[in-house]
Amino acid sequence: MWFTSDNAGPAHPNVIRAMSRAASSYSGSYGSDALTEGVTARIRELFEAPEASVYLVATGTAANALSLATLCPPWATIYCHRQSHVVDDECGAPEFYSNARLTLLEGDNGKLAPDTVAEALRRAAPQGVHNVQKGAVSITQVSERGTVYDLKTLRAIGAAAKAAGVPLHMDGARFANALQALDCTPAEMSWKAGVTALSLGGTKNGLMAAEAVVLFDPAYAWEFELRRKRGAQLLSKHRFLAAQMQAYLEDELWRSLAETANARAAQLAAGLLGVDGVTALHPVEANMLFLRLPRALHGTLQAGGAKYGEDSASMPSNPDSPTIDVRMVTNWATTRDAIEQLLSIAQS
Amino acid sequence: MWFTSDNAGPAHPNVIRAMSRAASSYSGSYGSDALTEGVTARIRELFEAPEASVYLVATGTAANALSLATLCPPWATIYCHRQSHVVDDECGAPEFYSNARLTLLEGDNGKLAPDTVAEALRRAAPQGVHNVQKGAVSITQVSERGTVYDLKTLRAIGAAAKAAGVPLHMDGARFANALQALDCTPAEMSWKAGVTALSLGGTKNGLMAAEAVVLFDPAYAWEFELRRKRGAQLLSKHRFLAAQMQAYLEDELWRSLAETANARAAQLAAGLLGVDGVTALHPVEANMLFLRLPRALHGTLQAGGAKYGEDSASMPSNPDSPTIDVRMVTNWATTRDAIEQLLSIAQS
Amino acid sequence: MWFTSDNAGPAHPNVIRAMSRAASSYSGSYGSDALTEGVTARIRELFEAPEASVYLVATGTAANALSLATLCPPWATIYCHRQSHVVDDECGAPEFYSNARLTLLEGDNGKLAPDTVAEALRRAAPQGVHNVQKGAVSITQVSERGTVYDLKTLRAIGAAAKAAGVPLHMDGARFANALQALDCTPAEMSWKAGVTALSLGGTKNGLMAAEAVVLFDPAYAWEFELRRKRGAQLLSKHRFLAAQMQAYLEDELWRSLAETANARAAQLAAGLLGVDGVTALHPVEANMLFLRLPRALHGTLQAGGAKYGEDSASMPSNPDSPTIDVRMVTNWATTRDAIEQLLSIAQS
Amino acid sequence: MWFTSDNAGPAHPNVIRAMSRAASSYSGSYGSDALTEGVTARIRELFEAPEASVYLVATGTAANALSLATLCPPWATIYCHRQSHVVDDECGAPEFYSNARLTLLEGDNGKLAPDTVAEALRRAAPQGVHNVQKGAVSITQVSERGTVYDLKTLRAIGAAAKAAGVPLHMDGARFANALQALDCTPAEMSWKAGVTALSLGGTKNGLMAAEAVVLFDPAYAWEFELRRKRGAQLLSKHRFLAAQMQAYLEDELWRSLAETANARAAQLAAGLLGVDGVTALHPVEANMLFLRLPRALHGTLQAGGAKYGEDSASMPSNPDSPTIDVRMVTNWATTRDAIEQLLSIAQS
Repeated sequence: MWFTSDNAGPAHPNVIRAMSRAASSYSGSYGSDALTEGVTARIRELFEAPEASVYLVATGTAANALSLATLCPPWATIYCHRQSHVVDDECGAPEFYSNARLTLLEGDNGKLAPDTVAEALRRAAPQGVHNVQKGAVSITQVSERGTVYDLKTLRAIGAAAKAAGVPLHMDGARFANALQALDCTPAEMSWKAGVTALSLGGTKNGLMAAEAVVLFDPAYAWEFELRRKRGAQLLSKHRFLAAQMQAYLEDELWRSLAETANARAAQLAAGLLGVDGVTALHPVEANMLFLRLPRALHGTLQAGGAKYGEDSASMPSNPDSPTIDVRMVTNWATTRDAIEQLLSIAQS
Repeated sequence: MWFTSDNAGPAHPNVIRAMSRAASSYSGSYGSDALTEGVTARIRELFEAPEASVYLVATGTAANALSLATLCPPWATIYCHRQSHVVDDECGAPEFYSNARLTLLEGDNGKLAPDTVAEALRRAAPQGVHNVQKGAVSITQVSERGTVYDLKTLRAIGAAAKAAGVPLHMDGARFANALQALDCTPAEMSWKAGVTALSLGGTKNGLMAAEAVVLFDPAYAWEFELRRKRGAQLLSKHRFLAAQMQAYLEDELWRSLAETANARAAQLAAGLLGVDGVTALHPVEANMLFLRLPRALHGTLQAGGAKYGEDSASMPSNPDSPTIDVRMVTNWATTRDAIEQLLSIAQS
Repeated sequence: MWFTSDNAGPAHPNVIRAMSRAASSYSGSYGSDALTEGVTARIRELFEAPEASVYLVATGTAANALSLATLCPPWATIYCHRQSHVVDDECGAPEFYSNARLTLLEGDNGKLAPDTVAEALRRAAPQGVHNVQKGAVSITQVSERGTVYDLKTLRAIGAAAKAAGVPLHMDGARFANALQALDCTPAEMSWKAGVTALSLGGTKNGLMAAEAVVLFDPAYAWEFELRRKRGAQLLSKHRFLAAQMQAYLEDELWRSLAETANARAAQLAAGLLGVDGVTALHPVEANMLFLRLPRALHGTLQAGGAKYGEDSASMPSNPDSPTIDVRMVTNWATTRDAIEQLLSIAQS
Repeated sequence: MWFTSDNAGPAHPNVIRAMSRAASSYSGSYGSDALTEGVTARIRELFEAPEASVYLVATGTAANALSLATLCPPWATIYCHRQSHVVDDECGAPEFYSNARLTLLEGDNGKLAPDTVAEALRRAAPQGVHNVQKGAVSITQVSERGTVYDLKTLRAIGAAAKAAGVPLHMDGARFANALQALDCTPAEMSWKAGVTALSLGGTKNGLMAAEAVVLFDPAYAWEFELRRKRGAQLLSKHRFLAAQMQAYLEDELWRSLAETANARAAQLAAGLLGVDGVTALHPVEANMLFLRLPRALHGTLQAGGAKYGEDSASMPSNPDSPTIDVRMVTNWATTRDAIEQLLSIAQS
């Protein structure tokens, strides 16, 4: 009953097998190997983006920070949701890599409304030397509150960014979970909606430590490569990143793992929301649940061995409140049994 | 016959097995797991340094850059050898992380003489506001030219740094190879010689991607942790770094792998230096050979399938020269057969 | 009828005379001169702070950015008002110098309520590695909306910062105007209220280009000196900064200049607020007016030759609105005649 | 008898008068004033560069650091002389502003030979991701050792930079002194020789604190403006920089001041080199003398009231040596009397 984070979950056996194969022989360093070449080609194909530049790194924070630094000069600002990962969970890595400013925007359920983005960009103009300049927009899909931007909204945000002449970054740490939620193509959820650079997650969805960055505008490629090396993010035995990603994308594994995680979250939500006093803080649209629980129920679940955390957005919480806000995260390996076990404790 | 780099070599089966075990179950994220705890304890024990702080990262460049940034403020300078990795092979990562300056010193065979270090530090004083301040010393063991500092020299450098009041960093990407060359203890080759922070390599010696940083002065610990996270170098599934390092240090595996690599280098050197016209650019003391070859011999070896690179310190080379300078690197998996095969081509 | 900015005003004749005197002979460079020594002593005396470190720079942005960088490490955040100068008018200089984040807080009339500061600092804890750390608080006195913190409020903010263990910076670009508004001592409005570092303005109040930084905690001094030089803010002919500041502080000139500017602002406000349809956006407490004018009145004033700007906080303004928000700033040289001339146009 | 630095000298009366005039009335802020417009036009005219962008700052270090940061990306390196001001006298300001690396080259008498530059740039290629990239070349005219590049040498360095595709920066803190030494036009000594960006000094030659940056390639202009503001180097009362520079360039004042300083240096050199045991460390070509003095003579001069410093390149000096290396600097205000007084002491 581990629901603390998708990071707590195991790695998929196919991934281990792929790494084991890659470990057994000699290969070129720093990405000059056949596995890397194959993954690059595969991602271009999956995204219907033959010109895209594809890079691998070991952490999602690196994918975000390197992307944003490449898109946005130091004297500009990145518009993003107040509750996004780049704001709350990276100890300022975007600022370290870019030296740019984050401008925090509000939005329900962890998502930015297109009008909010458009208005922020409109108010930024005119751009004299006294103000930081408008630099980029960054959105998170799945959002940090477990919700999913629909394609129409994505396209509207993409249009707002384009109208203002700034690039659009998508933090897709849970990109596959969103893909399954929307049942669309990778291209529809990225460059066709106006995304310039995508952090394509893998670690939260069954890999050990591998994320891709997909730059749909190859003009950014060389600068990204220099920033990656200079950021100490270019692995010498790069083939072990590629092996993970290759296994991930083979036979739609990434989508099926995300499908399972989403389904388990739906099952868990359906069960818990039927328990007296439990309410959802946000719609459950992918693999994360944000719930308000009666404090007694919370105690029962904890005592029963369920692992999950308080909702950091509600922290520090008031210990005298009769309720508590929590976050539960499912992953590809979450079993029906674990869900049923938790629900049976909750319903007892 | 791959001798391009120790990075080109395979990962050791024990490492794969350890990762596979770690991949099969749930675990805390970001280093709050039993494997990480075990590795930390093991490194403290091996180094006889119960107070040391131990951190894991995925690249040697990250280990170096984070260490140097923690040791040296932006307005100071890091004294290092002109041919060190931090100068030539990291695209300025030390400067990116620290914003400090590298001051390049000369020294035979890739090593700094203690007097050179002492003199540079002496000339730095007095420290007015117009100059960058003396900040840290960084040395590389095994050096980038394949040579090994003996313990007496290390201690003299450590004493020079201490006398000047600056910390000493050791880039130990090939620390195990040096340990075997000197047949000494980890403590003797680090803190007992005055090392403040050590980049302890694993990737070049049989791991996939795992390096440790050992801070012998725990006063630096919290800043290092913040810099690691902010540098996007803290892995969420940190247990996969720990699993590698745990396998590495178990039953002296790290030392036996390095022993093999060193022995193969000695065998290769002995054979090639017996070939007419071949000379050593530096003593061969660990697992790297820097040789001057007759150009014809070079052609024969390449045609025969031997893989190795030109010596980057001699690049761009003069194509009209009758000789060519090359670098050959052995690793834990280099076989006697591969050596003999290469030598038989060379001697034919 | 120039009311665009206090920066548009002339320099005081005493300042010219002092610079002229300083220009006529030889002197030590980089602050090793008698004028600098004298100014340092004078500021310590005026602030009843014999241990304070005092530095001079040529711009208020430099004073702020250097102070904040010295107080706050890169992985921390500076709490400040959303409408402060460090946010809106320095093109990110605080971030450039510190690499830290600005966290924007709300507050009426350009001021932070002590509870807002305390709550923000409280919510920052506990401080794990994933979040930027709490670093410093920065307030502006006179605020960017022309209002003045009273001493009780200042002390409450100082207490909140102290309770959280973070230093307090005051952007005192209009410090003298606030002093006059409160009729208090420099010490009461700075270190006695908990201010750690003060940007003490002069340029807006009759100097050419000279600002002081007063560090009440001398532990920050040496780092500040290095940052100033490294930031290219240490003037070689430093005596010309000192000469300005010496004239400024002599015979209470700074206070009398500010007194005049404040009085003129009060006179202007009294007159304009009597005109039909004119309202104050904020209380007029020092030398800045933020007014909502009927658009027709605005046209009349502009046609009559009055110079002032739209309120940047309301930009881009709606041209169809029947009113317009404007900012008017008086300075030491503003004459009663200029006020009366503007009022006569307004009242016609 | 002040010969410590040209920074120790007085400001010219014309400069005071110009500032006094500028101080007496209202004017636009941040460079939107008639004086700034006039100076910009004048510099374009003097340099025969109608497209050049011209900016003013208060320190030479700012001029250099902002120029280099604009010319050179963070992952590149700036080739410069080991003894240049950007290396030794700015506490790392170029690195702070640019985050790029300085690569130190050797050269006699403080100057780089064109072949040295060409060779360094040639060795930089090919440019993979592992190395810092070739970024810019920076030279100093007058050099830090008091010598002057002739036009042919400048053109050869410009050609080497152009061939390598990198821009050329000239630190012209003593540009006027070099102009007089070469008796050439500003254009010949800058863009006609291949200079991309020039730091045009004024402070050392009779101003209070004003330097210009001339960007001969206007493509760099907007980024420079943002960097200047973000670097806290844009003065609000910018007219006081412009007033100084306007007086400086009027009626060839800058050239006549430099002419005087150079002539006094020649007079001083001629006299001192006739004294027994005095030798020149470098040719005296502008307004700086680097001399080796018998230690007894040094004592006599000091006792007689002559002010000058030890040569920092020889520091810390050996107190047991029978000689001492010193630097003496003349300036526009150095009198024949002062020279004669010093010489009479030396010859006594």
